[in-house]
Amino acid sequence: MAEQKIGVAIIGARAFTSGELLRILLRHPGAEVVALQARVDAPMEVGEVFGFLRGAPLPAIQGVDVDHLPENTVSAFLCLPHTVGAKFAPLLLERGIRVFDLSADFRFRDHRIYENTYAVQHPSPDLNRRAIYGLPELFRANIIGQDLVACPGCYPTSIILGLAPLMKQDMVVKGTIIADSKSGVSGAGRTPNETTHYCNANENFAAYKIASHRHQPEIEENLTRLSGERQTLTFVPHLVPMERGILSTIYASLKEDITEDRIHALYSQFYDKEPFVRVLPKGALPATANVARTNVCEIQVRVDAPARRVIIVSAIDNLVKGASGQAVQCFNVSHGLDETAGL
Amino acid sequence: MAEQKIGVAIIGARAFTSGELLRILLRHPGAEVVALQARVDAPMEVGEVFGFLRGAPLPAIQGVDVDHLPENTVSAFLCLPHTVGAKFAPLLLERGIRVFDLSADFRFRDHRIYENTYAVQHPSPDLNRRAIYGLPELFRANIIGQDLVACPGCYPTSIILGLAPLMKQDMVVKGTIIADSKSGVSGAGRTPNETTHYCNANENFAAYKIASHRHQPEIEENLTRLSGERQTLTFVPHLVPMERGILSTIYASLKEDITEDRIHALYSQFYDKEPFVRVLPKGALPATANVARTNVCEIQVRVDAPARRVIIVSAIDNLVKGASGQAVQCFNVSHGLDETAGL
Amino acid sequence: MAEQKIGVAIIGARAFTSGELLRILLRHPGAEVVALQARVDAPMEVGEVFGFLRGAPLPAIQGVDVDHLPENTVSAFLCLPHTVGAKFAPLLLERGIRVFDLSADFRFRDHRIYENTYAVQHPSPDLNRRAIYGLPELFRANIIGQDLVACPGCYPTSIILGLAPLMKQDMVVKGTIIADSKSGVSGAGRTPNETTHYCNANENFAAYKIASHRHQPEIEENLTRLSGERQTLTFVPHLVPMERGILSTIYASLKEDITEDRIHALYSQFYDKEPFVRVLPKGALPATANVARTNVCEIQVRVDAPARRVIIVSAIDNLVKGASGQAVQCFNVSHGLDETAGL
Amino acid sequence: MAEQKIGVAIIGARAFTSGELLRILLRHPGAEVVALQARVDAPMEVGEVFGFLRGAPLPAIQGVDVDHLPENTVSAFLCLPHTVGAKFAPLLLERGIRVFDLSADFRFRDHRIYENTYAVQHPSPDLNRRAIYGLPELFRANIIGQDLVACPGCYPTSIILGLAPLMKQDMVVKGTIIADSKSGVSGAGRTPNETTHYCNANENFAAYKIASHRHQPEIEENLTRLSGERQTLTFVPHLVPMERGILSTIYASLKEDITEDRIHALYSQFYDKEPFVRVLPKGALPATANVARTNVCEIQVRVDAPARRVIIVSAIDNLVKGASGQAVQCFNVSHGLDETAGL
Repeated sequence: MAEQKIGVAIIGARAFTSGELLRILLRHPGAEVVALQARVDAPMEVGEVFGFLRGAPLPAIQGVDVDHLPENTVSAFLCLPHTVGAKFAPLLLERGIRVFDLSADFRFRDHRIYENTYAVQHPSPDLNRRAIYGLPELFRANIIGQDLVACPGCYPTSIILGLAPLMKQDMVVKGTIIADSKSGVSGAGRTPNETTHYCNANENFAAYKIASHRHQPEIEENLTRLSGERQTLTFVPHLVPMERGILSTIYASLKEDITEDRIHALYSQFYDKEPFVRVLPKGALPATANVARTNVCEIQVRVDAPARRVIIVSAIDNLVKGASGQAVQCFNVSHGLDETAGL
Repeated sequence: MAEQKIGVAIIGARAFTSGELLRILLRHPGAEVVALQARVDAPMEVGEVFGFLRGAPLPAIQGVDVDHLPENTVSAFLCLPHTVGAKFAPLLLERGIRVFDLSADFRFRDHRIYENTYAVQHPSPDLNRRAIYGLPELFRANIIGQDLVACPGCYPTSIILGLAPLMKQDMVVKGTIIADSKSGVSGAGRTPNETTHYCNANENFAAYKIASHRHQPEIEENLTRLSGERQTLTFVPHLVPMERGILSTIYASLKEDITEDRIHALYSQFYDKEPFVRVLPKGALPATANVARTNVCEIQVRVDAPARRVIIVSAIDNLVKGASGQAVQCFNVSHGLDETAGL
Repeated sequence: MAEQKIGVAIIGARAFTSGELLRILLRHPGAEVVALQARVDAPMEVGEVFGFLRGAPLPAIQGVDVDHLPENTVSAFLCLPHTVGAKFAPLLLERGIRVFDLSADFRFRDHRIYENTYAVQHPSPDLNRRAIYGLPELFRANIIGQDLVACPGCYPTSIILGLAPLMKQDMVVKGTIIADSKSGVSGAGRTPNETTHYCNANENFAAYKIASHRHQPEIEENLTRLSGERQTLTFVPHLVPMERGILSTIYASLKEDITEDRIHALYSQFYDKEPFVRVLPKGALPATANVARTNVCEIQVRVDAPARRVIIVSAIDNLVKGASGQAVQCFNVSHGLDETAGL
Repeated sequence: MAEQKIGVAIIGARAFTSGELLRILLRHPGAEVVALQARVDAPMEVGEVFGFLRGAPLPAIQGVDVDHLPENTVSAFLCLPHTVGAKFAPLLLERGIRVFDLSADFRFRDHRIYENTYAVQHPSPDLNRRAIYGLPELFRANIIGQDLVACPGCYPTSIILGLAPLMKQDMVVKGTIIADSKSGVSGAGRTPNETTHYCNANENFAAYKIASHRHQPEIEENLTRLSGERQTLTFVPHLVPMERGILSTIYASLKEDITEDRIHALYSQFYDKEPFVRVLPKGALPATANVARTNVCEIQVRVDAPARRVIIVSAIDNLVKGASGQAVQCFNVSHGLDETAGL
């Protein structure tokens, strides 16, 4: 039944997110990788880039040339730096190829916020208008059949999923949201630098980009969208000495006294049908190890009653639910496949 | 000049904190370890417990028997579980031996809070009244010459030092303090259990004891003491896959609009003369690797102006400034030695 | 088609190897876990033992009682300490249930070597005679249809696969084999102890049980079997600060001058058809990260020509190819399923 | 007494080895760092390069200019890439500054082996003749008063110290030495690359440069020197997911049957007076954690009697005894200071 599989290309095939996409797509019953492109001097085997893929039935990695993708390319995943992917998107769409962009280029409804945040000019503001923010749990209906999906950032995924039920219910005092997030080192990408050097990252823990990380406006735009009111947050990311995983501890003041039980029930109900959100039973707490290499987001809620403050903890694998897994989930939703296929 | 050194005993000599004490005391010019006691079946060499101390000029570890410490024992460090040390303290004090207790037994001014928090009965409420909370940066004058010093907990050290200048200046809106703390695994102590198993701790990050950790009342009591008003906080500890280090990210609402520069100046001035508090220059951020194996507390402050919220980041080594180093600092202050000796 | 799946029980369901079995069996198209038994006080959800399995469609863990396994139990995996499993095996076999034992109980052809090595008495010497050593690459034909398979140890798997082609060709000088093996911490099992405490294992590397590890006789027996002559080796295991993976660096003197190319060709041919052995192309080297969470054994060979010495490097995941993955592979072979099913 | 301290310069002050030198020299009673030079665009504070040194009483890092070192510069440590330091050495020596070179430039008695091994031309073959190999335990007498000391490589230190007693006693069959060494990631230096990226190094273990590492000829030259006969070895280095530490497991065939006790006694006696070599009591095994941040080399010997093979395990901190600590030890010996000063 190989002829029925959807042909998939990955542009930017040397990124960590690309390795993760390949891990998932190789076990996907309805997709087949037909092209891999990246900045390479000469074609190279995938196994030379990702040792764990040595011998896998995959095409070689070719130089980037979106005009010469195989005929049977139906969808493309873009694992490219900001602004680079946005230049290729129009070419792909013109050829009828659906685009799942893992960069930030199409994540903002208002492209000027993107331009301010990333200090660049948007290569395709027009295209930006029709892009869909690919968080299926919240915007599933919009993704079905769509051909341009902007896959959310890793931190935003963990924080937006963690706050969505409260936002929709308007239960939080505006201006009180704090997200204290902790990420594994793979979030910093594959390019070696001082931060990702083993000897600097290991046995170390630090905050970075306090209240100035590029994911903050993305989070704010989506919280605003969910609540219908302008929402802001204080966002502080930290680097954890581990390869993968994001855990966000989110604090917010409640408008009214609400019991922990009631909020727990609200969350359980909100995510009841979701295959990839696991609201934990009371007493259990999320852990990044529990979600590693899965597309699951674990969530727990607690109420500090004397302070009338809710504490939400959410955990994802930054490379899966925070990137490649969610991209495949969007791909599945867009194409009308089983949403959990390959995941 | 060995005869001039202060004779020191360690009770509970197999704890991680004891190993750290020994590391420090071996290079302390004014102290000499004259006795080591712990729950052992037979006397054993220190090197069998702490491989890095093999061959060091130290007495063997004997069974616990505080009535038979060497004549020249002048001070004792207690590295014992809660309530155990408090039973030995009176015996030691009667013999004129100064006590530096690393447990929580004497940390609370109000011993009933201790009893509620630790779910035990205090073995020596009377003694508790004269115990000094051993945070030299804030209570130095009280420690000089004292014979019963309660060394602060690791999380409290990082959080109280992080908030002290704001508490003293009454700049924070009550009820808005949140401390999101992250600790290395050595904070969980030496007894092996599921949590500290390498395969559970490694490549994992999780919160625990959300708003219910035993250090919370200790922090609150001291913040209250510093500000003169009843203070509370929401405290969430997390476990980091590293051996040592605590980083606390502390959030609080400011009573008035104050610039980051002014708060930074306040902190710089407040800790100006402190040998072990390093308020970082603007732009730099604390990291646990920078303070590992030192008695230093690194601090940085940031202001999220639109939210009128201050963010303080503090980093310590939980086994040093959060335990054994601070104990030696208190020992130095108590005995009138150079406060930095051995550290 | 659930009714066509083979019903599987796991006895000792709290072991690390059991968690790994479940990870594999959950995606196995031809197997269904119908019973989980372990030493538990009361039935408990799998998710309480293995957080990553929370919500998975699995039966609860019951106390051990092999007499009351479900009717549809066709095969059982034993993840039990030595001698414990061997007591249950006869009961299971009597009921027609095939046994895949992950302990050492049935690994030795000569049960007296087992008894000497493990310092116990064998509970079922008679049964031992019909047990098959479950290394499919070498003894596949024997495993087909068998009902008592002893799954090899983790170190033996890496070393025997690494040496098999040379043994079969009789190319090695007797008495010259040295296996210097390095294992992740999960090899030490789930019971917390000093060795597996994060603070002892992390940032540490050490040898242990030099030339006295219990896997040495198992390796020697199988090398002997392969070569037809009594073989011995010097075996030194080491502990690596990582969760999973074994890398063995094996040295042996060659009987004759043979080029690296020739030996590489020999290995490539020997394992040509094997789905789970990956003889790397020249220039590439095995790495435990490449085989983590897979059933693959990576092998490379080098010749130190001046010394007439061959160096073989092999890498496996100790919990997969070194335990649970190989057990499922044997299960597949025994039952005539696709050998790679679930793997 | 600051005026009596020996003025020290470090050239190449941004290397990991330089950070380690500074850590040691700051507590050295007889040395004072008077100049730091490195490739910098503008002078920078040490704290910007090594966070743990923030606030330390050290000069700023200036650009490299050995002609303008302070008047009171008496000794210089070169932490520079191969061939770079050798160009500066003559200039320093002309000015009467003693040179302790941490690169490989002057390690070889025969500079042509150096040239072959490093594929470069030696910048100062003449100077090479008077350089001393700085392994004090074996060549102490030669180092006293010397002004050009080549500090040994990290692997060679661990292996040569491990074999020296056997070499001197001529107890080993030629051609049978195998050194299987394992190193932490800091051995790969500070420049970020794929190998040292946290996500590649973590949870991974691999061999590299099998029988082709540049330290092999250095080891062979020194074993030959010790034994008086041409010695070779098979050397296989591996990378361990930890920051620091080298453990070498060394195998060799014994010429005669000798008991483990006798060899242990030989080693104990050989290193009896050495402050930095710790031959462990029987039963104990070296571990890199035991020697981390110390100048100690731990050694244990075992005999595999049936194979007439000796197994030596040695452990050092690659940055201390394998580099900066040993350099300071040589500095102490050269200047007639207490050999353990600062260490």
